[in-house]
Amino acid sequence: MREAVTRVPVIRVGSDGSEVRFDDEVTVEGSYLLVVNGNPMEKVVVSPFALREWTVGHLFCAGSISGAREIMSFDERDGRIEVEAAPSPGTEVEPPSAAWTVTPEMIHGGARWIAEAPRYNRTGGFHAAALLSVTGERLALFEDISRHNALDKAIGWGLISEMDLGRTMAIQSGRLPRDMVAKAAAAGIPLLGSVSAPTDAGIALAKEAGITLVGFIREKRMNIYSFPERIKG
Amino acid sequence: MREAVTRVPVIRVGSDGSEVRFDDEVTVEGSYLLVVNGNPMEKVVVSPFALREWTVGHLFCAGSISGAREIMSFDERDGRIEVEAAPSPGTEVEPPSAAWTVTPEMIHGGARWIAEAPRYNRTGGFHAAALLSVTGERLALFEDISRHNALDKAIGWGLISEMDLGRTMAIQSGRLPRDMVAKAAAAGIPLLGSVSAPTDAGIALAKEAGITLVGFIREKRMNIYSFPERIKG
Repeated sequence: MREAVTRVPVIRVGSDGSEVRFDDEVTVEGSYLLVVNGNPMEKVVVSPFALREWTVGHLFCAGSISGAREIMSFDERDGRIEVEAAPSPGTEVEPPSAAWTVTPEMIHGGARWIAEAPRYNRTGGFHAAALLSVTGERLALFEDISRHNALDKAIGWGLISEMDLGRTMAIQSGRLPRDMVAKAAAAGIPLLGSVSAPTDAGIALAKEAGITLVGFIREKRMNIYSFPERIKG
Repeated sequence: MREAVTRVPVIRVGSDGSEVRFDDEVTVEGSYLLVVNGNPMEKVVVSPFALREWTVGHLFCAGSISGAREIMSFDERDGRIEVEAAPSPGTEVEPPSAAWTVTPEMIHGGARWIAEAPRYNRTGGFHAAALLSVTGERLALFEDISRHNALDKAIGWGLISEMDLGRTMAIQSGRLPRDMVAKAAAAGIPLLGSVSAPTDAGIALAKEAGITLVGFIREKRMNIYSFPERIKG
């Protein structure tokens, strides 16, 4: 596995005309060919770590597998991610129910966790996605150059760990367009939050899919776009 | 053409337990099927404005056309963008030369311009890409839900306007991975800057392609990753 961060020479120019030369850390783009059962599926750019979690989450959210157990083998080398998958008949993901509530403070706790994401803090070039339990427990935090991949990794981790994703919430750093909400819907995660903005189509899908969508999570407040009954002070 | 911004009901929850209900503006996702000479090429999500600029820039950066004049007709309706293109034998884009320099202040001026981008300021859900001349003149500013599309729109505008893109710089709001640098390289734009971070592969391509890459443009400073000789106090 490659390093996720590398050092490059930089010239920092100040408005006073000063020039400082130093080495700074930047995000590494991992380029992979995803091969499923011998068939090249797609070329992808993924931060080169947690690739097993990414693969499971990505294939699951795309509807290619219905669980982590269907991945019979996983191999990553030389820019190829090769898996053998034995798709089962598939189990329907339960549509999210509102049998639990969380406090705004638990959601703020998720946002604080992603703000602490180590690689983001080193480079400014990562997105982060965190899974928390509905009691606010920190379960897993994943970073990636892509917000889509970060959420795929978190979902993949949940599937591999055989978590009940219906009793988790995902908090992430990027915007909330439809394709991000679709991942939460595919995984049956009932609450998706972000420090950033949603789109109209993201909100519309959250309403259809029974997902509580939360945007602009700031230190003192947050915006709720759908199913606010899951959030109780 | 659809509106780029729409209003949605929001519940804002404060940490003091307060709840405020109001309507807020969010970004609209435009979904289109791009059809070239009758062939459906790809499904795309684009903010629904400046679609002609987007189409020209997108097809140009993908190598499908070599200039705006090759688009013989353009039609956008019912979620379809249909163009007729008559590809010419193609002209090579000149590799960027360093026959001009800009000051750090001109680059800061570009960053200030994207910070003023109106739709971003209304919704927090847009990226912006600005084209400036090498004398610091503000040429064009485009916004889009996607940083890729925003740069495609700016490049498309430059092609339609028959600008000499070799004497422009592009300043944008999103990160600088390889695929963003590749657009500048395709268009022959010699300086690409962002308020955000580059990746290792973005820097490597900038070095190969002769592009001055600038990241983390802040009020008082910026980081230069390649060809610093184009920036002179």
